[in-house]
Parts: sequence; structure tokens; C-alpha cells
Amino acid sequence: MKRLYGLALTGLLSANVMAAQEPIEPVKAYQSDNPDKVELGKKLYFDPRLSKSGFISCNSCHNLSMGGTDNMPTSIGHNWALGPINAPTVLNSSLNLAQFWDGRAKDLKEQAGGPIANPEEMGFTHALAIEVLETIPAYKASFQQVYNKDMIDIDQVTDAIAEFEKTLVTPDSPFDRYLKGDKYAISEQAQKGYALFKSTGCTACHNGEAVGGNSYQKMGVVKPYETNNPAAGRSAVTGKEIDRFAFKVPTLRNIELTYPYFHDGAVWKLEDAVDVMAEIQLGRKLEDQQIDQITAFLKTLTGKQPSFQLPQLPPSTASTPHPDAG
Amino acid sequence: MKRLYGLALTGLLSANVMAAQEPIEPVKAYQSDNPDKVELGKKLYFDPRLSKSGFISCNSCHNLSMGGTDNMPTSIGHNWALGPINAPTVLNSSLNLAQFWDGRAKDLKEQAGGPIANPEEMGFTHALAIEVLETIPAYKASFQQVYNKDMIDIDQVTDAIAEFEKTLVTPDSPFDRYLKGDKYAISEQAQKGYALFKSTGCTACHNGEAVGGNSYQKMGVVKPYETNNPAAGRSAVTGKEIDRFAFKVPTLRNIELTYPYFHDGAVWKLEDAVDVMAEIQLGRKLEDQQIDQITAFLKTLTGKQPSFQLPQLPPSTASTPHPDAG
Repeated sequence: MKRLYGLALTGLLSANVMAAQEPIEPVKAYQSDNPDKVELGKKLYFDPRLSKSGFISCNSCHNLSMGGTDNMPTSIGHNWALGPINAPTVLNSSLNLAQFWDGRAKDLKEQAGGPIANPEEMGFTHALAIEVLETIPAYKASFQQVYNKDMIDIDQVTDAIAEFEKTLVTPDSPFDRYLKGDKYAISEQAQKGYALFKSTGCTACHNGEAVGGNSYQKMGVVKPYETNNPAAGRSAVTGKEIDRFAFKVPTLRNIELTYPYFHDGAVWKLEDAVDVMAEIQLGRKLEDQQIDQITAFLKTLTGKQPSFQLPQLPPSTASTPHPDAG
Repeated sequence: MKRLYGLALTGLLSANVMAAQEPIEPVKAYQSDNPDKVELGKKLYFDPRLSKSGFISCNSCHNLSMGGTDNMPTSIGHNWALGPINAPTVLNSSLNLAQFWDGRAKDLKEQAGGPIANPEEMGFTHALAIEVLETIPAYKASFQQVYNKDMIDIDQVTDAIAEFEKTLVTPDSPFDRYLKGDKYAISEQAQKGYALFKSTGCTACHNGEAVGGNSYQKMGVVKPYETNNPAAGRSAVTGKEIDRFAFKVPTLRNIELTYPYFHDGAVWKLEDAVDVMAEIQLGRKLEDQQIDQITAFLKTLTGKQPSFQLPQLPPSTASTPHPDAG
């Protein structure tokens, strides 16, 4: 027994050593030190009263029942406007080096204000959103408890939403359990896919805790990516021609849930996305079997999805401005 | 001790006798004998893939975070169409004698098919919705487990949604606790409001477990109700002129959460709704104090809201038809 225990221990140690040498790290759960702020942010995330119409919430396009996305090429916004770019998943987005495809928001707090005031998304203004919240006693009390200020402001709103979003990490995927030493956590095919994922060069960009999200890269390094989508990418932020068509590398965590793929949402099948990426980023034409293996690996990146009670929103009052669908 | 126990028992007995004589009955919790069906129905209720756009689910307009309504005069549907009538709450809707304002669906199962195929609501067809579900293995397995048939059909879909909706009753409101003998469960003002609610005649229509929902009544019995809404009401179903402008009496359960009020959603303030109802249905002009008392009573009808984990939806596959926002 002692000897067996010794062997098991050695196994665990070598697994840990292995994990340390791998380009991908397990996702760590997030423990907020302010549960009240998380609860407030969760309500705001689900509250369509932050939109002009009273119909669209953060969860409309970053749906936590669907991998933190809307599973559409581009989102539907106010007055049925179709968005210019694919809605990235909110899951594990705290691990990104910046927010939006072009990184124009430095963090989740800065990001959260964008869609509220975007005429083609939630179509509101920050001032009107605050006016709504100020008239709802339960919100008023929660904000005062969390921020201890007389008035609600947009900084508090986006700070609370961001704190909730930080909890939306997805630990404990089969691949993470494999990384931590459970060699039966993923299939042999997925293991082959992971080996290929590394040897083909995918991990040059898709690495770290989020398997992406930590650099900008040109879409079409080796071969141009053909699209009708007009997004300029990172150059819209930096003004530098060299950044044209560079985008934040998306996380591959939960990739099975976050179709369709790429910034234009043009590719629906994960196998096709793998095929295109290898070709235009790495100059490699993969065989079908290899694509299937990498796809099998990618599907092991689906982690524990957000798990909480459906929030109950406090009702409006007689002084709350009415929603305006027009 | 024995004597005290005897007194307490007498108190309970007289409370039960009181409840039996009251026009309103406490809401009973619903225990489904088929939890798998409830879980399946819950997923379908939250799944926007039952709409053409992939954007609108049952929960979009009957939002379980907002009293089972969308808190809009009329709903936003496919392509931002504005609906013809206020979306009634799904909460306690199993207690209604029929569904929709005009009662054109005999039960929740019959109702559930309507919005899916309504061009101005979810904008889909039943056949296409089934085609989507058939391509999603986890749905396929759930349907086979619950219904034991080779193919999914619309009857199964609406049956599962209806079974979930039956669980959306809201027991344990302060008023129900009062009815059951806890005389401190509602304020003195609310008690006065309840007495007025009965003596004014409101309970002629708003009675029973749902405090409504069990009869059709003309909107404007004593005095016409002025509205721009063209809905004909019950006559659209019966073809009888006498039923013109008759609507199903709405439940008053959770009325604080289900604004705006009436079939046209024209009235936002509960006090105003009470005022109008007394005038046009009962020919009574209430004083402000009386309106406040009745409103205080009505707010005690908010019961235990739906309480469950946010559902996780199974992902689409390569053969799933794509959403179509157009």
C-alpha cells in the first residue's frame, strides 16, 4: 500500500510538472471579495431597462444559457439593427488583455458602458440608464450598500457588471482535468489533437489560461482572409497601418458553444474554422483526420458553465421613465 | 401548556374557517409528476432557437425575472414588430379558464404553439422549429426519454413548455399567509384595502386562486373604456356581438410586477388602474385614500417568484438550420 501510494504521488508530481511546461494553463475559479457587488452586477446584466426599448439586456447578446454568446453572425440590436461584428463570449473575458475585437476598451468595466449607449445595440444613454436605476428603491439601496455614495453613476454600474462578469470563468473542463493529471479525462483522439494543436503552431497565439485572448494578430498572416465584413481591426484604435486587420485572438475556451466563428461570424462549423485557421495563419493544409483530432481536443475545452439562480429584478415605480421601443 | 396548545389550535381552525369563506383562495404549489418533462420545457422556454431570428424566446416577452411579463405596453417581436396587445404574465397562467386575452387557446399547451408561428412574434414555423430541435442530440435524447417516440413533434414541444409553465405558480404571498391565519402578514392599510376590495365589488370578477382569470367580462361595463387599441376581445372567438370588448379578467397575482396594465398596456400606475377599474366597471369614484388602501392590498399579492438555476441550452450542430434575422 505504501509503495502504491508513493507511485500515485509520483504520478501527481509529474502531472504537475507536465502542466507547468504546457502552453495552456487550467482556468482558475474566481472568488469575489464582494458578493453583494456580484449580485448587483448580475441583476444589471439581466436587466433590459438598461436599454432604450426595455427589451435588450447584456444577456440578450452574451447569453449565459448559450456559452455567453448569441450564436448569430452579428447581433440584433435596437430597432433590429444588425451589428457590425460577431459578439464575443463573455465567458472568461476577464482573462483577455483588453475588450472588444479591436481591444478599444482596456477592461470589462470600460467595455460594459459601450453597448448601453451604442445606438445599434441597447440604444440608450448613460444618463437615462442612471435615471431609471435611481427610481427603483431596491437598486438604490443596493448601490448605496456597495458603493456608499448618494447617487448612482455609470462608473458604479459598469464596475458592478464587470465584477459579476469576472465570476464567469469556466474551470474544470475535461482538458483542465487532463492537464492536472487525470489522463482519462479526454479521449485518445483529443490527446492526439492536442499534440497536433501544439506541433502545428496553434499555441503560438492560442495559449495561456484562456487559450487565446492575450495578443493581437493579423487575420490572414500567410494568406488573406476573404470577408465582406468591413472591420479594420486594431488599426482603428492605434491608427497604424501595420495593425490593419489585426484582431484580439479569441479565447478557445467553450468554443463548441460559441459558434459561429471569426470576427465576421461567417464560419459555423468548428472543423471548418480549424481548417481555415491552419491555412491562412500557419500555411498548413491539414488532413481531415487531423482536423477531426484538433476539433475533438477543442471540444474538451468546454468548462463548468455559469451556475446560479435566475435573478429576480426589482420592479419599476411610478417615477421610472417608460421603455421606448421607437 | 395544554391549554395554550388548545387555544392555538382553535386559532388555526377559525383561520381556516375564515379562509373558506373568503372570495380569494391561497395559491397552491404545483408538484409535477414528471420532473424530466419540466426540465425539458424549461430549456425550450428559454431557447431563442424556437424563433426564426434565433433571438426571441418565450422568456423574451414572458420574462421570469420580471413577473413573467416584458413590462411594455405591447411586445417587441420579429423584425421589431410591435404586438397588438399587452403580453399577459405567464405566472399562475395555468389557473386561467383559457389562454390569451380573448381565450382563443383552451390551455397552456395550445397557447405555446401560437407565438412560435406568429410572424410578428417569434416569426418561425412549427416545422422549422422541429427541424432545429431534431438536429440537437441532447434535445433529441430528452424528448425520447420523456415521450418515447421516434420523432419530435410540435405536440411534444408545447406539452413540455406547458408542463414547465404549470410550475410557475407563486404561492406564499403575504396575502396568502394572511388568509391562512397570520394576521400580521399584511399591514393594517392592506387589510382595509382588502375589505374595500370586497365591499366595492372588485371580487365579483377578481376572485378565486388567481384573483381573476376565471371569467370574461366587458371592459367598460358602466362607462366605456377609451383606447386606440383595436382588439375586439372575446367576440373575435365567439363571433357574437355581445362579446365585443369582453376580455379574460386578468389575474391580480403579482400585479405590482406586471405593469403596464389593461389589454392595451396603457396604464402604468397601479393606483390609476384601480381608479379606472372602479369607475368604468363598478361606477364608483374612489377617494385617494381608498385607492391607496386597495393598492396596498394588491401589493400583498406578490408571491414566491420562480426559483431555479439558469438553464444551460445544448449547442447546435453542423446540421442545425442557421438563425435568420431577416
